[in-house]
Amino acid sequence: MSDVLDLTRELISRKSVTPDDAGCQPLVAARLEAAGFAVEPMRFGQVDNLWATHGQGAPVLALLGHTDVVPSGPSEAWTSDPFAPEIRDGVLYGRGAADMKSGVAAFVVAAERFVAAHPGHAGTLALLLTSDEEGDAIDGVRRVAATFAERGTRIDWCITGEPSSTRTLGDLLRVGRRGSLSATLTVRGVQGHVAYPDKARNPIHDLAPALAELVARHWDAGYESFPPTSLQVSNIAAGTGATNVIPGTATVQFNLRYTPHWDAPALEAEIGALLDRHGLDYTIAWHRSGEPFYTPEGPLRAAAREVMSRFAGAAPEESTGGGTSDARFIAPLGAQCIEIGPVNASIHQIDEHVRVADLEALPQLYLQLLERLLPDAKSAG
Amino acid sequence: MSDVLDLTRELISRKSVTPDDAGCQPLVAARLEAAGFAVEPMRFGQVDNLWATHGQGAPVLALLGHTDVVPSGPSEAWTSDPFAPEIRDGVLYGRGAADMKSGVAAFVVAAERFVAAHPGHAGTLALLLTSDEEGDAIDGVRRVAATFAERGTRIDWCITGEPSSTRTLGDLLRVGRRGSLSATLTVRGVQGHVAYPDKARNPIHDLAPALAELVARHWDAGYESFPPTSLQVSNIAAGTGATNVIPGTATVQFNLRYTPHWDAPALEAEIGALLDRHGLDYTIAWHRSGEPFYTPEGPLRAAAREVMSRFAGAAPEESTGGGTSDARFIAPLGAQCIEIGPVNASIHQIDEHVRVADLEALPQLYLQLLERLLPDAKSAG
Ligand SMILES: [Zn+2]
Ligand SMILES: [Zn+2]
Repeated sequence: MSDVLDLTRELISRKSVTPDDAGCQPLVAARLEAAGFAVEPMRFGQVDNLWATHGQGAPVLALLGHTDVVPSGPSEAWTSDPFAPEIRDGVLYGRGAADMKSGVAAFVVAAERFVAAHPGHAGTLALLLTSDEEGDAIDGVRRVAATFAERGTRIDWCITGEPSSTRTLGDLLRVGRRGSLSATLTVRGVQGHVAYPDKARNPIHDLAPALAELVARHWDAGYESFPPTSLQVSNIAAGTGATNVIPGTATVQFNLRYTPHWDAPALEAEIGALLDRHGLDYTIAWHRSGEPFYTPEGPLRAAAREVMSRFAGAAPEESTGGGTSDARFIAPLGAQCIEIGPVNASIHQIDEHVRVADLEALPQLYLQLLERLLPDAKSAG
Repeated sequence: MSDVLDLTRELISRKSVTPDDAGCQPLVAARLEAAGFAVEPMRFGQVDNLWATHGQGAPVLALLGHTDVVPSGPSEAWTSDPFAPEIRDGVLYGRGAADMKSGVAAFVVAAERFVAAHPGHAGTLALLLTSDEEGDAIDGVRRVAATFAERGTRIDWCITGEPSSTRTLGDLLRVGRRGSLSATLTVRGVQGHVAYPDKARNPIHDLAPALAELVARHWDAGYESFPPTSLQVSNIAAGTGATNVIPGTATVQFNLRYTPHWDAPALEAEIGALLDRHGLDYTIAWHRSGEPFYTPEGPLRAAAREVMSRFAGAAPEESTGGGTSDARFIAPLGAQCIEIGPVNASIHQIDEHVRVADLEALPQLYLQLLERLLPDAKSAG
């Protein structure tokens, strides 16, 4: 049986719904320790994190991943038990098969092979895993990165193993991520009866023109390969349910995905000014999920492009689209970050899966990257 | 003990929460029958209605009221049991004390006194009661009026006993009511993830500029003593609760209170055109609650003004404000309608009440109106 397939199945069978690691990291830690890595478990609150290193000094190349998965939903909706991995027609099914227990298993197998073949490699090879990537991430990589910043642990290059491929393994290289900023806006009015509008102040009416301006606003036309900054309202609610009552408050939640043209303070100031201009009586609670990051052309992107081209048969699309990932916490440490992983079509869905052929190829892809980025000391010297 | 106070207490102690009459109308019917009225119970569905007449031919003056009450809410929040009427410091407390068991009792006592003193009065004195004014009113006066229209029962003048006074008994004469039109607007978009706005269509974003235009719209500047037509949004809802999901639909409920400048079809066409202009993918469900009505200067208003001035010590304010009442169903029969009743400050509230002095005066007020409007045949001839 294949090493990476076995390990992926073993990880899937551990029901590690955020923030429960369910024993995934101890399994990985034992294997890496046996391979010569120094391992440091970093538990914060309910969250397990694992930091493992081999070699020393610069450059430090970190492989970043998570052991937690999103809930499976009703397991009877799955063709097979989401936590009992099953192969059908060359495809491995199970929660986390794509996001991202296959990536974690491939990291481990690639790391083992790399240090076995290149015990004297340049710099440091590190693995960083968390059990809270899918949740609020407070005690996950955000907290680890804060600890690293305090104690001066440096990362030069970071490869996240999130499922980034769109059709075939290696067809997309993520070279940045948009920033993400969320807000809950509450507009206050004065409750009353629809028949007596003079005795009330309708917060929906106060809000409407401000909302119209907010959603019509053009923020930028994109940045390098970033799509344009976008604001999307996710929720709006006002009213008692009664059709004859003017509500006392209206609440709107929205999210911005933004390019490096912006940062959270600038967006908050801009939107606050807009709301002030409309004379709203409001409060707004901001949640900063992560500033944007961008990895420009350089040795990391070049190595990734070369290796991926070989696996995918064509140069990868180099993209900054998609959601957020934990790389947003590592980038501010001064690291260049890229993301390379399996096909993401089934993530967070019923019957999540990965092609066995892609899974078998993935450790080899990572291994070739490690060999390029952390060459043997003598050949590098 | 006073006749009107006793009857009001007896009505309050019958827990007639809409649409349950709880025996109020049979009590009234028995008294009116004893006084020489012809009584016709008109039960539709769960709703009791009572039509009682004395005399014959034109003019037909109808006293319009309801025996149902809104729920009391938690009775422990009341100082005394809402359905056990209690007098404290010259004030009678209980659910329906103001809205409108006091009005019904005063109608009955005034009618009894009137026909006893003026057996040969001009025209017809009628009472019309329903047990569904506070509810959806489908089987109440709406249905009675439809029956009257079919069978040719005519009403010339209608006095509704709803609590219309604001500070002292008789300080406000309602001479019309605005129309009321409600709508539930559903805007369809395409659900998606906030990170991929290109793959979704946000219905809140589509809605925002249309909503801003709708709430900013000036409809008219009023009509005679009507306040301006007003549109108020009562409820707005969109979103799954998740902050990263673009919802698939957005729903808005709004209500218009409108002057005789408008009718429901014209408003519906106007708003439909506005929504079409914004290119929304929408459905809208209209609910027509009643067209506006207006009673111009004439013998009915003149009589009411004269009598009320005597009771209030000053000419009443002649108003078309406030919510809707069942007069909206009687007016289309060709009736002139006015509303005169006790002080409305406590209606639908905890510790609803009426001043005993006002209650004692109310039958006298109605009686003087009857004497003016339906004079004895010989003095009228
Ligand atoms: Zn993931
Ligand atoms: Zn009422």
